[in-house]
Amino acid sequence: MDGHRVVRDVPRGDPAAIERLREYGVATVYEALGRLGLLQPVLRPICEGMAIAGSAVTVSCPPGDNLMIHLSLLCCRPGDVLVVAVTSESTDGMVGELLATSMRAHGVAGLVIDAGVRDVAELRSMRFPVWARAISARGTTKASPGSVNIPVVCAGAAVHPGDVIVADDDGVLCVPQSRVDDAVSRAEERAGREDKTREQLAAGVLGADIYGLRGRAVELGIDFVDRGP
Amino acid sequence: MDGHRVVRDVPRGDPAAIERLREYGVATVYEALGRLGLLQPVLRPICEGMAIAGSAVTVSCPPGDNLMIHLSLLCCRPGDVLVVAVTSESTDGMVGELLATSMRAHGVAGLVIDAGVRDVAELRSMRFPVWARAISARGTTKASPGSVNIPVVCAGAAVHPGDVIVADDDGVLCVPQSRVDDAVSRAEERAGREDKTREQLAAGVLGADIYGLRGRAVELGIDFVDRGP
Amino acid sequence: MDGHRVVRDVPRGDPAAIERLREYGVATVYEALGRLGLLQPVLRPICEGMAIAGSAVTVSCPPGDNLMIHLSLLCCRPGDVLVVAVTSESTDGMVGELLATSMRAHGVAGLVIDAGVRDVAELRSMRFPVWARAISARGTTKASPGSVNIPVVCAGAAVHPGDVIVADDDGVLCVPQSRVDDAVSRAEERAGREDKTREQLAAGVLGADIYGLRGRAVELGIDFVDRGP
Amino acid sequence: MDGHRVVRDVPRGDPAAIERLREYGVATVYEALGRLGLLQPVLRPICEGMAIAGSAVTVSCPPGDNLMIHLSLLCCRPGDVLVVAVTSESTDGMVGELLATSMRAHGVAGLVIDAGVRDVAELRSMRFPVWARAISARGTTKASPGSVNIPVVCAGAAVHPGDVIVADDDGVLCVPQSRVDDAVSRAEERAGREDKTREQLAAGVLGADIYGLRGRAVELGIDFVDRGP
Amino acid sequence: MDGHRVVRDVPRGDPAAIERLREYGVATVYEALGRLGLLQPVLRPICEGMAIAGSAVTVSCPPGDNLMIHLSLLCCRPGDVLVVAVTSESTDGMVGELLATSMRAHGVAGLVIDAGVRDVAELRSMRFPVWARAISARGTTKASPGSVNIPVVCAGAAVHPGDVIVADDDGVLCVPQSRVDDAVSRAEERAGREDKTREQLAAGVLGADIYGLRGRAVELGIDFVDRGP
Amino acid sequence: MDGHRVVRDVPRGDPAAIERLREYGVATVYEALGRLGLLQPVLRPICEGMAIAGSAVTVSCPPGDNLMIHLSLLCCRPGDVLVVAVTSESTDGMVGELLATSMRAHGVAGLVIDAGVRDVAELRSMRFPVWARAISARGTTKASPGSVNIPVVCAGAAVHPGDVIVADDDGVLCVPQSRVDDAVSRAEERAGREDKTREQLAAGVLGADIYGLRGRAVELGIDFVDRGP
Repeated sequence: MDGHRVVRDVPRGDPAAIERLREYGVATVYEALGRLGLLQPVLRPICEGMAIAGSAVTVSCPPGDNLMIHLSLLCCRPGDVLVVAVTSESTDGMVGELLATSMRAHGVAGLVIDAGVRDVAELRSMRFPVWARAISARGTTKASPGSVNIPVVCAGAAVHPGDVIVADDDGVLCVPQSRVDDAVSRAEERAGREDKTREQLAAGVLGADIYGLRGRAVELGIDFVDRGP
Repeated sequence: MDGHRVVRDVPRGDPAAIERLREYGVATVYEALGRLGLLQPVLRPICEGMAIAGSAVTVSCPPGDNLMIHLSLLCCRPGDVLVVAVTSESTDGMVGELLATSMRAHGVAGLVIDAGVRDVAELRSMRFPVWARAISARGTTKASPGSVNIPVVCAGAAVHPGDVIVADDDGVLCVPQSRVDDAVSRAEERAGREDKTREQLAAGVLGADIYGLRGRAVELGIDFVDRGP
Repeated sequence: MDGHRVVRDVPRGDPAAIERLREYGVATVYEALGRLGLLQPVLRPICEGMAIAGSAVTVSCPPGDNLMIHLSLLCCRPGDVLVVAVTSESTDGMVGELLATSMRAHGVAGLVIDAGVRDVAELRSMRFPVWARAISARGTTKASPGSVNIPVVCAGAAVHPGDVIVADDDGVLCVPQSRVDDAVSRAEERAGREDKTREQLAAGVLGADIYGLRGRAVELGIDFVDRGP
Repeated sequence: MDGHRVVRDVPRGDPAAIERLREYGVATVYEALGRLGLLQPVLRPICEGMAIAGSAVTVSCPPGDNLMIHLSLLCCRPGDVLVVAVTSESTDGMVGELLATSMRAHGVAGLVIDAGVRDVAELRSMRFPVWARAISARGTTKASPGSVNIPVVCAGAAVHPGDVIVADDDGVLCVPQSRVDDAVSRAEERAGREDKTREQLAAGVLGADIYGLRGRAVELGIDFVDRGP
Repeated sequence: MDGHRVVRDVPRGDPAAIERLREYGVATVYEALGRLGLLQPVLRPICEGMAIAGSAVTVSCPPGDNLMIHLSLLCCRPGDVLVVAVTSESTDGMVGELLATSMRAHGVAGLVIDAGVRDVAELRSMRFPVWARAISARGTTKASPGSVNIPVVCAGAAVHPGDVIVADDDGVLCVPQSRVDDAVSRAEERAGREDKTREQLAAGVLGADIYGLRGRAVELGIDFVDRGP
Repeated sequence: MDGHRVVRDVPRGDPAAIERLREYGVATVYEALGRLGLLQPVLRPICEGMAIAGSAVTVSCPPGDNLMIHLSLLCCRPGDVLVVAVTSESTDGMVGELLATSMRAHGVAGLVIDAGVRDVAELRSMRFPVWARAISARGTTKASPGSVNIPVVCAGAAVHPGDVIVADDDGVLCVPQSRVDDAVSRAEERAGREDKTREQLAAGVLGADIYGLRGRAVELGIDFVDRGP
């Protein structure tokens, strides 16, 4: 029972909740969730200013082969985010303009890939959202088996099919499906608090005072002196 | 006979063929060539959207010394690409605005360097094309010997003087001189095929069907199931 | 006497001299100074085209905790540059939009941090100048002690409170306070020389001739030959 | 419900099966399992010749804090393997001789940690088996919450409490609990085949002949020629 | 006044205190000192089981040139530790068997170098203690100026001439000269405490109980449950 | 003509000359040759104290596939050294105990591989000499074409079939076949000089005096002062 497989159905989250997570953004949702699910910062967007959220269709590939990415498109619906993991570290360019054209045609919201991509000039002019580990012209074969919609580890984080992926300039976050509603309400609350804090900070009030950090400093035994030695 | 030397003459390729390689771009030519000659993706362009091709004038420098880059300009003709290798790994900024001004004055098409560059704000406003391993203000001496126009290894790829360098947002490729014509015709053929495929993919046809990957998946024993466990 | 402490007063340099260093830029001042004080190139600006200079307020934090950055704002005056070191390597996002809003409200000229930052889309739209090791949404606690305005090592360079930090697209430089005047006059002299050299190079004169490198090549035993083997 | 927690009970595997996996070793079991569950090779043993297997007690720590490792000992039984993940990358020395003494006293078979360890001279003379990312004298606090016996990602692999960890000079492998029996029988079969192959190879028969690779080479279009150009 | 210089005299510490620091070892002294002065763990000993301590003679070299290491031997006394920093990152083998023979002849206790060494088979058979960033056969020139006995940054830590260097299997520590006596007494105290704790731990008492961590866990809101979901 | 191919015949060097290079060792031969041909120090021996030299049989593999290593054994004679390059960076364990058994049966002197190896406990107990980039249990397929005995780039150095590989604790060196005799005589001369220098250094004479470095220091403007500021 360890064979490779393609699972066609993925449970998707509520589109309205997903859109709200996109708006709050990775940094806010990550904190709101209690600091779970952040992919390692080695994944970077190929251009600035992109922000997406969607249900994860997961792909597990051997390095240097994108057969399973092609097959994963059989399982995608509009708004999904493809999350590609490789079974050993690789920077090969597993996705280029042609595959991105196909993804766009099928409504895929974006790509998160723990490997390389290529044709980045074209990907940028298409404004197709991609977070990747590397940019490399080295293409791949379409010859080796893997799986679609199984649990994967991508850039150090566990991703299950149907988890909600949020990605923007700060990185990529995986919100477990069971936590989406909770994430929305906590992020909303957090964002509200931050709005107030931002106003105070912009007016010159110090975080040291807002958060009571002077007292904490004293408790921690930090000395305040006027001049260095 | 292991002395350092400067070889003045480099065989250059046909400008029309070189221009065609530039237009097809690194990713297409690399595949067309049978996946040879790609420099490691650690070399990145200092700004987006540059695309060059030209005959390689090669330079071998000790780390932290750019004497040989200065001497290499004795050997450059308009359209050439300077390819700088160092004898041990370094991020020092071996080329800055002054050297780039000189390169431009002599018609050098661009610079590929397995080390650092500096004055990048100026290099960007000059739109001088550079692919480098790092950006570092640390300049260099002009005191230590090396060679010009000998075979070098740059970012993991062997480059011979006169090979054609193609560089764009996807990276840097070295096409052996004897393979240039072949590369042009294969790239043309490949680009033609890709145009057709792009149309199909944009219309929603799946790569899985275009390339016959469903059958391959079955041969590989991949299971298709509706739902995960 | 190894306790943590916050030193309130930092000696500041002459604003006119600091502004001149900013204008000359990191690469020129670094060379003018005799190649001292460059931070490792792993620190990169979060957007292109920023250039700042100011007196360093130094912060030493444990990884993953930004309590001391909050407290450091008690010590900042308009024009200062915050320099944040961590006691072991970390990419966590220690500063985000809220802290940057506070820094801006207090006139902080910019941030140099040997760790990560987050909310980079907002930091970019604020045009708040930041040089950092990483971008990561992973935030921090405000719970662990450190120090403000003690000597630190940031990205491999020693920085003392009150040293002048110069930062631009080429990286980050620390000019010891006692060397500021000297740095200005040497940078001026160097920039003047470079203006002349630039003109010559733009007119096609070779660096090999300007710097007498043909003779040096001969002394070093470099052979000049017409053709390779 | 995203709070930190300590789960006391872990399902353990059959000791005889675990011992067999230890004897077959990481490389053989990994292949036998269909190439699942290998931790990244950045984890290295602190001394050569160690080989362990045991049920995983998992620990999730914030970087630089080993409170949860101490608490995890409340949950260990003789023969268990502690698997420590950190929530962001760190090389701090989270375990030293004292903790190892305690682990040994409680029968812990060994430690797999995606961070640093210290007191390695003492750990080596105790022959306490450790696989770690780094060696660093930098100790930790005991102040920040985490969890014990939740699913973690350690060095790029998902590990669930009770999975069987196999570790030796080749690295660290996680065998899902449901796959242990299968792993044993497949590893046995594989080891038997390898014994025969080894004999043939030692006698000079080529793998090319044993595995039919000459034919495969011909199919793949590989040319056999006597001499290079 | 930014010239290179060789400072002949270094203040040395008390040999008995230095020997005590060696015996306590890096990990214990580092904690005792309040976690100051640890060099990054990228420096590793070339063989296991070495442990030294001595007054630092500091050397600042350009990468790839060991002239200043030769000159530093003019300043060494028996028992000193050479600490070599380079002005930009390098792995070149700056010290080999010949230089080590000379160091030994002059009583140098060991070498800490933020670069490479070579002839390691010979260095190991001499049992000459070396902590280095790399092993590389690439030798160096003796042509470029630097300084001896100025403050340097070595592997991320500031080292002043005369500071006491402690190095063993756990890494390298720099104890500021003014802190040596304090370090000895604190390390002694700490080691005493650790002896008691070790006994308890070996007898099976848990650190959770010795350090009162169960209570802390409750305060931090950590749940204790019998079984996972 | 860019097809994959296996070239059966490799020109071998004179065994006596090769043995002399082995005895002089990597560091000495590298210097004697004028600093050419050193592979990057990322390749490390899997155990200490190995020293080999032999004619290179080169292998170019796609990452994660060792078909061509099997085929390369068709081309090996006793005393040869296998040099394995991969077409993109990989740490997969491409060679294990079985292949090493086969290599030993055919008299292969050792293996240099720019990827991973596995079964290292067995390789060490066989004392089979291996220099590799990584240790990883992740095995490979035998399915993808490559070439044998073509020019390759291995760990940053160009290696031609028949070049002489020298490898020991200091790393791996490639001596071009045309330079072998020259390398032997220069290494002999260098080793003789080093013997004399070693005697002097052991007797306490300083390198500063043997090499005339005091004078050089003065020329370079280095100040000698008794005390620091």
